[in-house]
Amino acid sequence: MNLVTTDDIQAAAKRIAGVAVRTPLLPQQWATRGALWLKPENLQGIGAFKVRGAYNAIAALDESARARGVVAYSSGNHAQAVAYAAKKFGIPAVIVVPDVTPRIKVEATAAHGAEVVEVPIAERESAAHALAEARNLSLIPPFDHPAVIAGQGTIGLEIAEDMPDVDVVLIPVSGGGLASGIGTAIKALCAGAKVYGVEPELAADTAAGLRAGERVDWPMERRARTIADGLRAQPSELTFAHLKAVLDGVVAVTEDEIRSAVRTLANKAHLVAEPSGAVTTAAYLFHGDELPSGKTVAVVSGGNLDPKTLVELLSE
Amino acid sequence: MNLVTTDDIQAAAKRIAGVAVRTPLLPQQWATRGALWLKPENLQGIGAFKVRGAYNAIAALDESARARGVVAYSSGNHAQAVAYAAKKFGIPAVIVVPDVTPRIKVEATAAHGAEVVEVPIAERESAAHALAEARNLSLIPPFDHPAVIAGQGTIGLEIAEDMPDVDVVLIPVSGGGLASGIGTAIKALCAGAKVYGVEPELAADTAAGLRAGERVDWPMERRARTIADGLRAQPSELTFAHLKAVLDGVVAVTEDEIRSAVRTLANKAHLVAEPSGAVTTAAYLFHGDELPSGKTVAVVSGGNLDPKTLVELLSE
Repeated sequence: MNLVTTDDIQAAAKRIAGVAVRTPLLPQQWATRGALWLKPENLQGIGAFKVRGAYNAIAALDESARARGVVAYSSGNHAQAVAYAAKKFGIPAVIVVPDVTPRIKVEATAAHGAEVVEVPIAERESAAHALAEARNLSLIPPFDHPAVIAGQGTIGLEIAEDMPDVDVVLIPVSGGGLASGIGTAIKALCAGAKVYGVEPELAADTAAGLRAGERVDWPMERRARTIADGLRAQPSELTFAHLKAVLDGVVAVTEDEIRSAVRTLANKAHLVAEPSGAVTTAAYLFHGDELPSGKTVAVVSGGNLDPKTLVELLSE
Repeated sequence: MNLVTTDDIQAAAKRIAGVAVRTPLLPQQWATRGALWLKPENLQGIGAFKVRGAYNAIAALDESARARGVVAYSSGNHAQAVAYAAKKFGIPAVIVVPDVTPRIKVEATAAHGAEVVEVPIAERESAAHALAEARNLSLIPPFDHPAVIAGQGTIGLEIAEDMPDVDVVLIPVSGGGLASGIGTAIKALCAGAKVYGVEPELAADTAAGLRAGERVDWPMERRARTIADGLRAQPSELTFAHLKAVLDGVVAVTEDEIRSAVRTLANKAHLVAEPSGAVTTAAYLFHGDELPSGKTVAVVSGGNLDPKTLVELLSE
């Protein structure tokens, strides 16, 4: 299997320049276990890192395919990322969402000018493929695609540029596109740096898979229990191959630890993170014994959460 | 009176490089009145822009004076900024705070290794001057000092670098150091850009002073009513002279508008801002009729607020 290379990631960086925010590393003075910096991808215009991969994948299409338009299935950050990137290119976008998706998310996606198609949750993937075929659209998957992985990897390039002597990089893992891309860049550019994935205990299929040496399947009902709604997916063959190559380990965090990390990020780092974006801070705070010491960067992947949920989490 | 120049600000930028975070401009996709970017100074390590001016003022001291140490009076962000900057230089810092200062703020300042001296609130300025004389320390004022103004002005340099064609820059005004510095840089480097101060209606002494052509004095009891506790000070002669030269106008925002802007920043921009830091977003949201149209940058000056107050504001 061909893995994404740093050349691919560098090409992605050129494509997304001026579209994705070039986020800084934020030093955290409250961090007492060891030096900690946050990479705040929640500050992207769409509120999450997903804009990097989606835009790169669309930019990498040949011009005539791109002009015909794109289709994606997602109810979350990937939906908004594809809709936003398509708008930037001035091309049609169709987003297939489960018919149980909250109005607020449907409207946010439609606000970018995308056509939203609602289908029963079990049909969303097949519906997207059918639409791609019927309308001759390019399908932009949320993680299982080299150009998506390369786009997310630009975060790793930026970390390497800002802190070439970083010791530890913590990355949320779900479908694995983010960790595959960042890990590839960090391992190539930061000699000796360790790269750790972080996932909820309730969706710790990647840790189990890496221990077993092959992907394991946890039923969706089991994974759906975590509050970290962006971390309920599982790696594909492509991303799992990357994760095997680049991860030094995976840390699993509890629901209480995730909730506590959301509070720490708001009160001490002045960042609103969604639970999925807070897992790396949870790993830093509560799993120091499983991690190497040294200069640590935690990727805060997104900040999109319901205002009521935010108040509930901050009130605990 | 000699005003701070862009040369002074460029010199400050060299001094603070690597100490203050080089914050990005964050595009806001929810902004419907016109294109809006936020300059998130709440993401500085100490949670506010004040580190820029304090560090530059200490760096500008001659070496023997600096080695003897510094003193400052403040219960807020300037206290932590001076304590932090002094720690970076490895020199003694004494911070004079009112004896009614919350424990949490005293501890935050002491955590940077500063000596905290508590005095009755009416005596804090005189106590700081007395300490400066008795111990031969340099007094670092919160705004009434060219090196402090030049340090805050580095924010304007960064805005000009990232967006030379910016049309409107919105800056919180209190003592006026921040607006003096940023305004000086923007007026010199961004042809045609308009610079507006923003202050609470309850502490709108700067708007009144600019209308009158000279500083006006509002009693502290009156200014103290605003929730924006960082915006209760008044310009000095030095900062007022700058504000007269660089401001195109001042917008006054209500308490309700400030509270609403804190919510918008959390829920849409994923930033925790203190009320003082949210006034510029309030001006954008609610006072468009008083502002020119065009590419607008709002400076979010800080994010230090009590966790309970944050929950209260987000629950409204």
